[in-house]
Amino acid sequence: MTELAVQEGTWKNGKFYFPVRVYYEDTDAGGIVYYANYLKFAERARTEFVRMLGVNQRNGLETDEQLGFVVRHCEIDYKSSAVLDDVLEVSCAIKQLGGASAVVSQEIVRNGQLLVSLEVKVVYVSLKNKRPVRIPAELAKKMQGC
Amino acid sequence: MTELAVQEGTWKNGKFYFPVRVYYEDTDAGGIVYYANYLKFAERARTEFVRMLGVNQRNGLETDEQLGFVVRHCEIDYKSSAVLDDVLEVSCAIKQLGGASAVVSQEIVRNGQLLVSLEVKVVYVSLKNKRPVRIPAELAKKMQGC
Amino acid sequence: MTELAVQEGTWKNGKFYFPVRVYYEDTDAGGIVYYANYLKFAERARTEFVRMLGVNQRNGLETDEQLGFVVRHCEIDYKSSAVLDDVLEVSCAIKQLGGASAVVSQEIVRNGQLLVSLEVKVVYVSLKNKRPVRIPAELAKKMQGC
Amino acid sequence: MTELAVQEGTWKNGKFYFPVRVYYEDTDAGGIVYYANYLKFAERARTEFVRMLGVNQRNGLETDEQLGFVVRHCEIDYKSSAVLDDVLEVSCAIKQLGGASAVVSQEIVRNGQLLVSLEVKVVYVSLKNKRPVRIPAELAKKMQGC
Repeated sequence: MTELAVQEGTWKNGKFYFPVRVYYEDTDAGGIVYYANYLKFAERARTEFVRMLGVNQRNGLETDEQLGFVVRHCEIDYKSSAVLDDVLEVSCAIKQLGGASAVVSQEIVRNGQLLVSLEVKVVYVSLKNKRPVRIPAELAKKMQGC
Repeated sequence: MTELAVQEGTWKNGKFYFPVRVYYEDTDAGGIVYYANYLKFAERARTEFVRMLGVNQRNGLETDEQLGFVVRHCEIDYKSSAVLDDVLEVSCAIKQLGGASAVVSQEIVRNGQLLVSLEVKVVYVSLKNKRPVRIPAELAKKMQGC
Repeated sequence: MTELAVQEGTWKNGKFYFPVRVYYEDTDAGGIVYYANYLKFAERARTEFVRMLGVNQRNGLETDEQLGFVVRHCEIDYKSSAVLDDVLEVSCAIKQLGGASAVVSQEIVRNGQLLVSLEVKVVYVSLKNKRPVRIPAELAKKMQGC
Repeated sequence: MTELAVQEGTWKNGKFYFPVRVYYEDTDAGGIVYYANYLKFAERARTEFVRMLGVNQRNGLETDEQLGFVVRHCEIDYKSSAVLDDVLEVSCAIKQLGGASAVVSQEIVRNGQLLVSLEVKVVYVSLKNKRPVRIPAELAKKMQGC
């Protein structure tokens, strides 16, 4: 029914990019984006990255198995700050791929200037008991090329 | 093991009050508390209010029945703004009590000055199918006096 | 430098619509969007609505005058819940226009089903002292038609 | 006027602890605390830690100088998840102290079980231009002992 397309990411030179607009909700009284909120931007990008690879996270939530990625480790380097109304690009690249885990390298960039970089280790788990599960071959194969 | 008490509310003249400290996470680039975040403060107060009446929300989540309050309607009047480091008092009073619902009147006050007032209609539901369920007699009786 | 377009809204039959994707950050342990977060969606839509009318909020923040809209009153009706991965449409319509204020009527819809409706009274103020200021004639004229 | 004390931290064996209650706002559809929100808990603890050492962050915001700590780097290890209604203890310890920076070691614990550990590098800056500024001798001296 709706013809209005929601924000998606795109591929440029084999790398995934997702654009994010900074709203009041993202900022704090220091006039800049609150430090925890870059992790929200990063997860939106990872979610759209996985969606583009053909996997829907909610499907996971609704099946009996309920599989999905959870974050095990995260390293964030804050180089410069984003401010209200900024348009940011959040990239995703697979740095390392294990049987049930992956290290995702992400950069948050404004007009070519790197503001924040993240390295995020995610583990594929059964969402019920949080036990690691092998990443499905089809998804792993797609991630390998990114 | 821990002897550290977490924040609770108190009763003053028959009315429930819950204190809230304003942190960076609550503020925005306008230098004030972001308008949606007062709803977080209000819910913390309602949660502690119900806890003090002897009901634990997570118990609801873990039983088969899974009962709890959800918000159906909310009216918020923003009179003045809270800022970083403020200590606020959030009150809860039952304005109206129905079989499966209640209207809660809440005020967010700083040093006696009313900043934000809310009127929140909550409905007691089965969290699985969101269908209204009669508020347990014991809880309803306790709410009546507030 | 960037060719990646960030999410904008569109006009359909004279009404403004802004699409919002629901991410994990928006949901809560009840499995639905947390009740305060619909106010974030509503503000994103209002911001893009005003941006489309040709006004940039940050310009306001950077000039000496520092003008912008703040919320004075808000009424929210929660009819049904959004869940993870939903694509929502958030509409904006000017219900009433005063010299320094406006009442904005907003609906949050999923596949044609109304989930949440809001009525938001915003006041145009000097962000420094929060005093009401007359909405610029050009902007007021544009808002009138919406 | 108010006699209601807001949540403070305490010292145990020379280490600072701040208690945090988990509310619906902190959780996500996975039924656990959203991964970015532990950074909020960590900052609340750091803020109360600095406040206990006798420094008020807002004073910084209001003076001409406007000094304060900003996060430069952050490493987070997610071992286990917190859930709704949990009472957490967030600790703060100075791991390293430089002229204008400090590395803070933080642990988020539930009933003696370590859930999340963080290492946060903060820099003392002029909030206007974000340039590093020497930590005041009095504050540095107090931090040294923690």
